[in-house]
Amino acid sequence: MEDGRYIIGVDLGGTSINVGAVPFEGGTVLGMRSLPTEPHHGAKFVVDRMVGLIQDVIRDARREGDLAADFALGIGLGSPGPLDRASGTVIETPNLGWRNFPLRDLIANAVGLEAELDNDANAATLGEWWQGAGRGVRSLVGVTLGTGIGGGLILDGEVYHGVSDAAAEIGHMTIDSTGRKCNCGNYGCLEAYASGPAIAARAREGLEAGAPSLLPEMVAGDLEQITAATVSEAIVAGDVYAADVMRETAKFLGTGVANLINLLNPEMIVISGGVTRAGDHLFEPLRSEVRKRAFREAAESCRIVANELGDMAGVIGAAATFRIVRYGPL
Amino acid sequence: MEDGRYIIGVDLGGTSINVGAVPFEGGTVLGMRSLPTEPHHGAKFVVDRMVGLIQDVIRDARREGDLAADFALGIGLGSPGPLDRASGTVIETPNLGWRNFPLRDLIANAVGLEAELDNDANAATLGEWWQGAGRGVRSLVGVTLGTGIGGGLILDGEVYHGVSDAAAEIGHMTIDSTGRKCNCGNYGCLEAYASGPAIAARAREGLEAGAPSLLPEMVAGDLEQITAATVSEAIVAGDVYAADVMRETAKFLGTGVANLINLLNPEMIVISGGVTRAGDHLFEPLRSEVRKRAFREAAESCRIVANELGDMAGVIGAAATFRIVRYGPL
Repeated sequence: MEDGRYIIGVDLGGTSINVGAVPFEGGTVLGMRSLPTEPHHGAKFVVDRMVGLIQDVIRDARREGDLAADFALGIGLGSPGPLDRASGTVIETPNLGWRNFPLRDLIANAVGLEAELDNDANAATLGEWWQGAGRGVRSLVGVTLGTGIGGGLILDGEVYHGVSDAAAEIGHMTIDSTGRKCNCGNYGCLEAYASGPAIAARAREGLEAGAPSLLPEMVAGDLEQITAATVSEAIVAGDVYAADVMRETAKFLGTGVANLINLLNPEMIVISGGVTRAGDHLFEPLRSEVRKRAFREAAESCRIVANELGDMAGVIGAAATFRIVRYGPL
Repeated sequence: MEDGRYIIGVDLGGTSINVGAVPFEGGTVLGMRSLPTEPHHGAKFVVDRMVGLIQDVIRDARREGDLAADFALGIGLGSPGPLDRASGTVIETPNLGWRNFPLRDLIANAVGLEAELDNDANAATLGEWWQGAGRGVRSLVGVTLGTGIGGGLILDGEVYHGVSDAAAEIGHMTIDSTGRKCNCGNYGCLEAYASGPAIAARAREGLEAGAPSLLPEMVAGDLEQITAATVSEAIVAGDVYAADVMRETAKFLGTGVANLINLLNPEMIVISGGVTRAGDHLFEPLRSEVRKRAFREAAESCRIVANELGDMAGVIGAAATFRIVRYGPL
């Protein structure tokens, strides 16, 4: 933080709100704060909570980093989408229950700083590109495995948004047109195989068919309690069945990643989400499936790696969004 | 052709070589010439034939358009790939039997004009964007259905090549991971369902199972003679079975196109190739499948249209490649 200028990065999720002060040139994030989102209290509650966190962060960052108050350049917001960047409006977020919600201007007016808005998956990808696994790479695809599967695209050194800010819906890529039913209503979306709930559902199916495993014991016999995290824990405990479930997950994910590589020929794919804790149980079969399905030239020029920044990626990337809109490409 | 400056566009295919003089600012292509490629005569034969065509076109264009000889700015080459644009080398083309072939410099030296190289599918997409169906659009995806399925990407006003010039391999997008075997060795590639040979193969399968149709009569009982063009002709003649085959093709293609839309949120998808002659028999079920599988925001902002320039797209786009490399974005 050479000159003390910084941008507030806000990562708004369905579960929690993370806020930090991100130095203009990157580096250590100051004053990090986090609170649960609690969207059931309504939109005003969430906005007030965001504003409070931002004010706390500005105060703390000044204390921690010896920052001048007027060096807060503005606020970058990462929010679930779809959204419209030009107007700063969240068009719809099922998780938060918002529709056509002018989030950017509400925050900017309440805090008294200018703000910019992008979607959370783009922000996380941008964060990993600027300060994390993707530093120095020209084109990369971020894939976040969670309750859903999100994505972000950095192409030729810039975030690619598409014509209506709706690009990078990686989770709803069809990999098996007559396959598993997805929450979106279609069949065979990547998300129906490799999201957290899909991993848990596939694990349960095998257990119900009688596969031997530590998993039932880990959830005291209540298979509904199994999550993707339970599967990862079981792998660490040496469970062969759980490792099989992860290998199968990796094959589905590898099919989707191969599609991304054949289409976009990126230098890197960054995989984020709790499932990366499975380590080589995920990445080895994933890379192997990609080698089978992607063109050699494209596969050989693409590294497939885990994210480095964890939850910080969203905060750092949200700040980067503001910087890019106001000050040009990183 | 206001100032008489032009670029020679060369579209090299496995079947034919098309060459024309493309005005710097676009507009009517002059001196168009075409000859079969005849790659079995070897690389030298093909290069000599290309050089001869280029020289003929320069002479004819001057005559037709009253062009000054020194207004030929250079040569744009579209070739099957993969290739390396920086070195102007064709890395491999199974159709022509070339490997690591320095096409750009061989042509440039023989003609005495500078040259640039890009792959044929990128060139065709660029042509449609500059002068055809995609005029004025910011981001589009070109999909060419032929013996294989090729593609090109124009993203935010520029051709997107990827990190090793290997982007836009649309034909090998997996849409059905356990589906039909593709020539590439994998299963369930779009090309295994919607390329010309795949359409013909699916038509034959139904006929062998006893479907009533005009098709067998049209090929005098020799089902091996059925091509995608025969299927299109049968549709025009009112054949219900052929229309079913095309509807099924459109559904597969629609799955692939929906993936492109969910991932890239383009303003337009331009479909090229003989199969577009099926008109609404292709486009209606294609659009319907896309509406089912793509996100609403992204689907609503994307027009799905047929190409406008036919074979000229490759020539015009090849010339545009030269213009962009030497003079900046269009």
